[in-house]
Amino acid sequence: MRIKCKKSILSEGISIVSKAVSNKTTMPILQCILVEAVGGRIKLIANDLELGIETFIDGTIIEEGKIALEAKFFSDIVRKLPDSEIDIETNSDYKTTVYCEKTKAVVPCRSGEDFSYLPVIEKEKSISISQMTLRDVIRQTIFSISDNENTRLMTGECFEIKNNKLSVVSLDGHRISMRNIELKGENPDIKVVVPGKTLQEVSKILSGGIDDEVSIFFSDNHILFEFEDTRIVSRLIEGEYFKISQMLSIDHKIVVKANKRDLMAIIDRASIFIQETDKKPIVVSVKNDNNMYLRVDTNIGSLNEELEITKEGEEIIIGFNPKFIMDALRAIDDDTVNIYMYDSKSPCIIKDAEESYIYIILPININTSIY
Amino acid sequence: MRIKCKKSILSEGISIVSKAVSNKTTMPILQCILVEAVGGRIKLIANDLELGIETFIDGTIIEEGKIALEAKFFSDIVRKLPDSEIDIETNSDYKTTVYCEKTKAVVPCRSGEDFSYLPVIEKEKSISISQMTLRDVIRQTIFSISDNENTRLMTGECFEIKNNKLSVVSLDGHRISMRNIELKGENPDIKVVVPGKTLQEVSKILSGGIDDEVSIFFSDNHILFEFEDTRIVSRLIEGEYFKISQMLSIDHKIVVKANKRDLMAIIDRASIFIQETDKKPIVVSVKNDNNMYLRVDTNIGSLNEELEITKEGEEIIIGFNPKFIMDALRAIDDDTVNIYMYDSKSPCIIKDAEESYIYIILPININTSIY
Repeated sequence: MRIKCKKSILSEGISIVSKAVSNKTTMPILQCILVEAVGGRIKLIANDLELGIETFIDGTIIEEGKIALEAKFFSDIVRKLPDSEIDIETNSDYKTTVYCEKTKAVVPCRSGEDFSYLPVIEKEKSISISQMTLRDVIRQTIFSISDNENTRLMTGECFEIKNNKLSVVSLDGHRISMRNIELKGENPDIKVVVPGKTLQEVSKILSGGIDDEVSIFFSDNHILFEFEDTRIVSRLIEGEYFKISQMLSIDHKIVVKANKRDLMAIIDRASIFIQETDKKPIVVSVKNDNNMYLRVDTNIGSLNEELEITKEGEEIIIGFNPKFIMDALRAIDDDTVNIYMYDSKSPCIIKDAEESYIYIILPININTSIY
Repeated sequence: MRIKCKKSILSEGISIVSKAVSNKTTMPILQCILVEAVGGRIKLIANDLELGIETFIDGTIIEEGKIALEAKFFSDIVRKLPDSEIDIETNSDYKTTVYCEKTKAVVPCRSGEDFSYLPVIEKEKSISISQMTLRDVIRQTIFSISDNENTRLMTGECFEIKNNKLSVVSLDGHRISMRNIELKGENPDIKVVVPGKTLQEVSKILSGGIDDEVSIFFSDNHILFEFEDTRIVSRLIEGEYFKISQMLSIDHKIVVKANKRDLMAIIDRASIFIQETDKKPIVVSVKNDNNMYLRVDTNIGSLNEELEITKEGEEIIIGFNPKFIMDALRAIDDDTVNIYMYDSKSPCIIKDAEESYIYIILPININTSIY
């Protein structure tokens, strides 16, 4: 194989496919990027067998062929080469040399023969959304997946399409995050669970704006994201996702409207007093004087805060893990948030009027009589 | 004690003295910042018994007194408070409350009674140099101190003043870094070894430009840096520093003049091929064709590079640890560097004509016959 291409283009292609390079594996081939120059096009592929990414790059093919290059090394050397034309040549012994200006580097590689290509996905069921929207949706829900492999379904996000609406849900047993998006045109009804890692990598690769679309295809076991010259294929997580409709229909007795930035500043301070291990709550007390009083009391010290709010309904005292409130507030782009509560033992819900986002957070049990 | 001050001023003061807070100690008082409001001025002090820093901050004293506040916590809470006036009040039980707008925080603290103040330094021998110069001198030499506590003198830098010239030297057994500065006026002759950690912290705190001076005082066991409202006192390292005059007077047979940026790019690429553990050299070959050929050959792969240079003297083949060359080049601000060599077994010297900087690097033994 022999190809020529611009450093900047090759570097960008490597950066895209590198996200599917396995970094904990005993199979050296999974740590490689396959460079394939066939049929007039140059393709880079990486595949850790859960997640596979391929992207086409512009360049000139002087001799067709393919080679599997050690990904970390290949990425490092290309990044450090001058911003000029790169010439990659593989001889019959699979020895690969990279030339660029006066540099000549022989790089570690393997025959591409035992490289696993991406599975072929039937393109029957699909939707199309803006790259920016998908990136936002992932950012606004990914934080509440679980990292516990024993509850495998919780390590993914549920993508459900129903009546031309896409709902993306993540949950970890303490909280639920949900984003709802109206889709254009007619769309199939689908419900799948996508691995969190896949979504994290997809959101890093998607660089397009609101007008750049990404097509998403669904098969029984895989999801395929396709945009521009790139295809990302991931296995789905098998199993029936959790039913959350009951949680979504919880009633409320109190609605609080608060300034998001002020509330975040308070919770940020509160978190200094609360160590991960001691699981102390931030105690939130909503009073009829249109103030929210927030309080933390730990063996480190104590914090008392108050925040002007507007309120409908009763007074309430309720305790939360400040991290859960913070994660939800960070994901919300609005300046003002609406918090719906029922009593000190029921989950609180932060959502907008259109329910484009819904964050449900379980409270921490507190002895309300002492506050 | 009760004081009031601006958040921004307090925060900056904490950031300065925090560099002398011990983070590995069994003595809780060493993890504290002492706030002392006495004689109409507010002073912050931290002292880990090796390094001590005190700084005055502007503010209002309502009641004189002092208190030792847990540094990490105090720093976190102040940083996260609104940019407004902060009110700190300590009651007779040493309970300290920080007020700011609607926030009230009770913070962890101790009586200041057993806090160690900074030692008093005789102000007999001193020099004065620009803050920017001192910061540059530290940056340009600190990388070649040793972190091995068994060779304690190597963990510091030698500050020597002789004939109104300041020489700062660091060495780790493989290389020597030296910076020479002309001092203004008449200065005492001095030779001391300053701990590397002290210099690292001093260079972080010095924020002034070329026209802002720092006074440095020397006593038998301590060094004191004084500028604006801040004083930094450090113990010196005891012992006789290494004699390097013999190394400085090495002869040379070859002088190479190279573009610094191009040479750095090559060494940066070479370092990808060389792992810390395998100690392979970059082999530098200077030819009469006014090219420098650089080569790395490891079990990962190989790299061949060439660089146009101008040369006086013989041809040479010599091997180096690329990290040592890189560290020296990074510290040099000139666009072109002069490299002086004698033979493949003798140290190479990178220095400017005025010897304002001198970097001496020992070669790695190579079998020159195979290149």
